[in-house]
Amino acid sequence: MIYITRREHFNAAHRLFRPDFTDEKNLEVFGKCSNPNWHGHNYTLFVTVRGEVDPATGFLVNLKDLSALIETQVLEKLDHRNINLEVDFMAGKLASTENLAIGIWNQLAEPIAATGASLHCIKLYETENNYVEYFG
Amino acid sequence: MIYITRREHFNAAHRLFRPDFTDEKNLEVFGKCSNPNWHGHNYTLFVTVRGEVDPATGFLVNLKDLSALIETQVLEKLDHRNINLEVDFMAGKLASTENLAIGIWNQLAEPIAATGASLHCIKLYETENNYVEYFG
Amino acid sequence: MIYITRREHFNAAHRLFRPDFTDEKNLEVFGKCSNPNWHGHNYTLFVTVRGEVDPATGFLVNLKDLSALIETQVLEKLDHRNINLEVDFMAGKLASTENLAIGIWNQLAEPIAATGASLHCIKLYETENNYVEYFG
Amino acid sequence: MIYITRREHFNAAHRLFRPDFTDEKNLEVFGKCSNPNWHGHNYTLFVTVRGEVDPATGFLVNLKDLSALIETQVLEKLDHRNINLEVDFMAGKLASTENLAIGIWNQLAEPIAATGASLHCIKLYETENNYVEYFG
Amino acid sequence: MIYITRREHFNAAHRLFRPDFTDEKNLEVFGKCSNPNWHGHNYTLFVTVRGEVDPATGFLVNLKDLSALIETQVLEKLDHRNINLEVDFMAGKLASTENLAIGIWNQLAEPIAATGASLHCIKLYETENNYVEYFG
Amino acid sequence: MIYITRREHFNAAHRLFRPDFTDEKNLEVFGKCSNPNWHGHNYTLFVTVRGEVDPATGFLVNLKDLSALIETQVLEKLDHRNINLEVDFMAGKLASTENLAIGIWNQLAEPIAATGASLHCIKLYETENNYVEYFG
Repeated sequence: MIYITRREHFNAAHRLFRPDFTDEKNLEVFGKCSNPNWHGHNYTLFVTVRGEVDPATGFLVNLKDLSALIETQVLEKLDHRNINLEVDFMAGKLASTENLAIGIWNQLAEPIAATGASLHCIKLYETENNYVEYFG
Repeated sequence: MIYITRREHFNAAHRLFRPDFTDEKNLEVFGKCSNPNWHGHNYTLFVTVRGEVDPATGFLVNLKDLSALIETQVLEKLDHRNINLEVDFMAGKLASTENLAIGIWNQLAEPIAATGASLHCIKLYETENNYVEYFG
Repeated sequence: MIYITRREHFNAAHRLFRPDFTDEKNLEVFGKCSNPNWHGHNYTLFVTVRGEVDPATGFLVNLKDLSALIETQVLEKLDHRNINLEVDFMAGKLASTENLAIGIWNQLAEPIAATGASLHCIKLYETENNYVEYFG
Repeated sequence: MIYITRREHFNAAHRLFRPDFTDEKNLEVFGKCSNPNWHGHNYTLFVTVRGEVDPATGFLVNLKDLSALIETQVLEKLDHRNINLEVDFMAGKLASTENLAIGIWNQLAEPIAATGASLHCIKLYETENNYVEYFG
Repeated sequence: MIYITRREHFNAAHRLFRPDFTDEKNLEVFGKCSNPNWHGHNYTLFVTVRGEVDPATGFLVNLKDLSALIETQVLEKLDHRNINLEVDFMAGKLASTENLAIGIWNQLAEPIAATGASLHCIKLYETENNYVEYFG
Repeated sequence: MIYITRREHFNAAHRLFRPDFTDEKNLEVFGKCSNPNWHGHNYTLFVTVRGEVDPATGFLVNLKDLSALIETQVLEKLDHRNINLEVDFMAGKLASTENLAIGIWNQLAEPIAATGASLHCIKLYETENNYVEYFG
């Protein structure tokens, strides 16, 4: 069993808030992250897959294929987007890093399984100081 | 003459567009950065000042003071904000990294001069791959 | 189950030595790190907690609260301090990165449990080339 | 139980290819990495060992010893070398990051066990965007 | 006047040697870098251009255009290549970082001037510990 | 004219204070950095030299020689040392990053000139957020 990780990046806007809260209540719970005019981040995404090394190639997966799959399943939906308004798999969810990591997992788990490898971990940095890990 | 640099961070949303352009024209000129629903970045700011070392302290400037000045003049206005909608010193300007670096310079040059040091350079990273430097 | 990590920093002085050894013996066992006049590091600390996402907030924990807890329990005791002389939870212990990571775990495990999350890992960098992980 | 990690670096040339393939077939399977004239990388290696803290020293292992062991078992064989042509423990293997991580594990597991600690993980970066982890 | 910098990467093999030297003499002068079987690096390239901000776009240059120009003039020739054997603009030159930085400058100065901006600096990292800057 | 930079590291303890001040006054002026029990840092040092490329080697300087010179002139005196108590070239000076950068310049300018290159810049990081540059 071996693990291989691919790092990708996307830039997006978001806001942490509950529509059933007033702006004051959102500010109290979510702080500056509740700004109704949005703010944004350079997100850094680490996708880790696990499985056996294919003796024919020396690869667990071809990273070009893994990267292409992350591009179509995740980055095209998130990069330069508004996470609250434009990302189908986040609709109706609080746009926290936790929920975003889980959403990205759900986008990738099946397509990666179809390659013969298994998705092991989504690690998502919102800033250099904060990251979330989700193992399914 | 010595140079000292302080690194700071802020997270903000923005959009590159001209109001006199159609969305199609903005997309053509500014690409994904013109998304009307905004996107955002973790900006990293390096403020470099220059001057003589004060023999009484061994300091060019007290970095605590410099950091406090950047906080009130720049970060409070930009952090977790929408650069196009909420930042007074960017009103009416294209929210490019170039213009933002110049705007930050204008916020800091005089207050830093009042400390006895001189503002030497604003270096502003929009992503790890792109940065702007402005020397006034 | 989800994992969230907060990165913090502190700068401290320390010395690796045993008071029952001569300086020569300490030098032999601990090398340059035994310098009786101290040396120091920029320590980087990663605190990982695990638990369930709160559907009301989308958060595992509010990072502002986690950061404040690390500040009072760990950073105020360590930052700009001498680990051998001034840190209550390190009294009488060898000031190795291993013991420091365990000491930080003991400072944080209960207060974090009181928030409803569980402390999962203390990861402590002494330099870019060396780090310790402790899982309790 | 505690874990300690040492980071090391080496620079090497390699090529991904199968001698039973034509150059065209190798290009199709391995892309630019199959270039018959070689290419290379700054590899970054993280060696993680686990065990108990020795109360006499506060150390799991003396990092100077661990680093010396990595030097003789791994770096002297790989640094400024051609992985396909010159590295005994990679002879006859595809020079993928996966196989290289496994090869490095096999070089280190026994010598580390002889120190009283256990090898826990080899983490090997080929570029900032790609890394492999192997746990034996 | 403003300065904007684009970071790019390429991986390549090279060897430092003079064909008029014996292998022993090359080893004496160039050390491990003279290995006849090659070694390689992840090079990191920073291209800095300077000029005036275009009031119509807020840009000095469109980074998409600058990146495309670096791609065709530099990266396509260097990435996953052998610098000594395959790179036309390095033919007959010692493959040092110094000469490579000068070679990249010569590839880019005229095409960048054609965009209305001026090439200001080529900064080339061979490893995290060594970099060269060339200002023409 | 070309510029080449070598990065090095050292870990040291220090304290910012004036012996003619009380502890209270030192705390007021230098903050936590005045702690009488010391604190410390992982300093990162960038030494930039400039000159002409030697056509016989493709080098401005041999980095092995430059690194050895930094080792004997700077690192052996500073690494794992107390800057206030043990560093001859800092005796009687306030142990600020500014003064330390100037002190390192004075240690290196002549020995580098003797190699045929010129010292151009000392860049010294005390933390990731603060650095000083000195050009002589």
